[in-house]
Amino acid sequence: MTKHGLIVSLSGPSGVGKGTILAKVREDFPDSKSSVSVTTRSPREGEEEGVAYYFRSKEQFKQMLSDGEIIEYDEYVGNYYGTPAAPLKEMSASGSDVLLDLTIAGSLALKEKFDEAVTIFILPPSFEELEGRLKGRGTETEEVVAKRMAQAKGEILRANEFDYVVVNDDLETAASKIEAIIEAERCRYERNIGIEKKSSWA
Amino acid sequence: MTKHGLIVSLSGPSGVGKGTILAKVREDFPDSKSSVSVTTRSPREGEEEGVAYYFRSKEQFKQMLSDGEIIEYDEYVGNYYGTPAAPLKEMSASGSDVLLDLTIAGSLALKEKFDEAVTIFILPPSFEELEGRLKGRGTETEEVVAKRMAQAKGEILRANEFDYVVVNDDLETAASKIEAIIEAERCRYERNIGIEKKSSWA
Repeated sequence: MTKHGLIVSLSGPSGVGKGTILAKVREDFPDSKSSVSVTTRSPREGEEEGVAYYFRSKEQFKQMLSDGEIIEYDEYVGNYYGTPAAPLKEMSASGSDVLLDLTIAGSLALKEKFDEAVTIFILPPSFEELEGRLKGRGTETEEVVAKRMAQAKGEILRANEFDYVVVNDDLETAASKIEAIIEAERCRYERNIGIEKKSSWA
Repeated sequence: MTKHGLIVSLSGPSGVGKGTILAKVREDFPDSKSSVSVTTRSPREGEEEGVAYYFRSKEQFKQMLSDGEIIEYDEYVGNYYGTPAAPLKEMSASGSDVLLDLTIAGSLALKEKFDEAVTIFILPPSFEELEGRLKGRGTETEEVVAKRMAQAKGEILRANEFDYVVVNDDLETAASKIEAIIEAERCRYERNIGIEKKSSWA
């Protein structure tokens, strides 16, 4: 029996601490994989195809988009950056768990494409706390913070479309909850199909 | 927001080590509750109503059965022993997690009654291992062991009707998987309905 790996995505409003949590989870699950993005920008020196990015032309990217091979994408300084579907499927089929850092729309698109994907919404402990964190960065103007907060208020209403909700009131606790979700999902019956029919039980 | 507690049941073939695993999980989650059975036998000295058992007459028990208030029951030396549904609902509504040790049929009946219940099937690592454990008890005749094994073969085919499957190849690992399932289920969105609408986010 070859067991498929999990496809797990984390999303949440800007400033919620998703990156830090994900870094901790990756540290604790060193065998987990991350996704390599597809980009239309040119490779820089030392950037390897399939390692830093998958480098594609704009025409190729548009073709991938219309073929449904890109789960989510963004435009930045005239270039596209997207998450390709096929490598996720391959990594999962080979037994590796894949951990993704996606936008909220990205996680929902992922779930639509891969019903077996596990989507986790990271929620800040409170509105005030999120505002404090955004301000605390010191890099954002008051206007940007206000815009981010308005956006966050809209975004958290989509938490109900996710499988799990984890409140980030403490990094260690939030990371351990995500690790518990991963452990639990590995025990889901559908992921163990045939386990009771394996040779020793035949 | 009052959060409901989980209703979690463990089942598995005889000899799989379910009792030991459950004892470990209860130790690690001292706030979790267990179920008090209903019985038709008379109370012994010191046995309190609702603590040792709920004591009911055979007529009352039959009435509860026909009212769908008994999830599973068994007959032993002329008396009935059953798991009542109402207290589970009450404990869960008051925010307590309830951990149950049920027969395979009992877990499936529980799930039918409470769709939100979490059912876990404990699987032995192999047929040989289970046989070894049953023989190792030294209390069972060869005939009983053979009967138990035949029964187990039939039972494990029902694992597919459970939410989760945990292989008990090691007590600590199996218990920690069950604890991860409990942690994860607490993060399930449906259990956190309204979390994104709580006052601080309004």
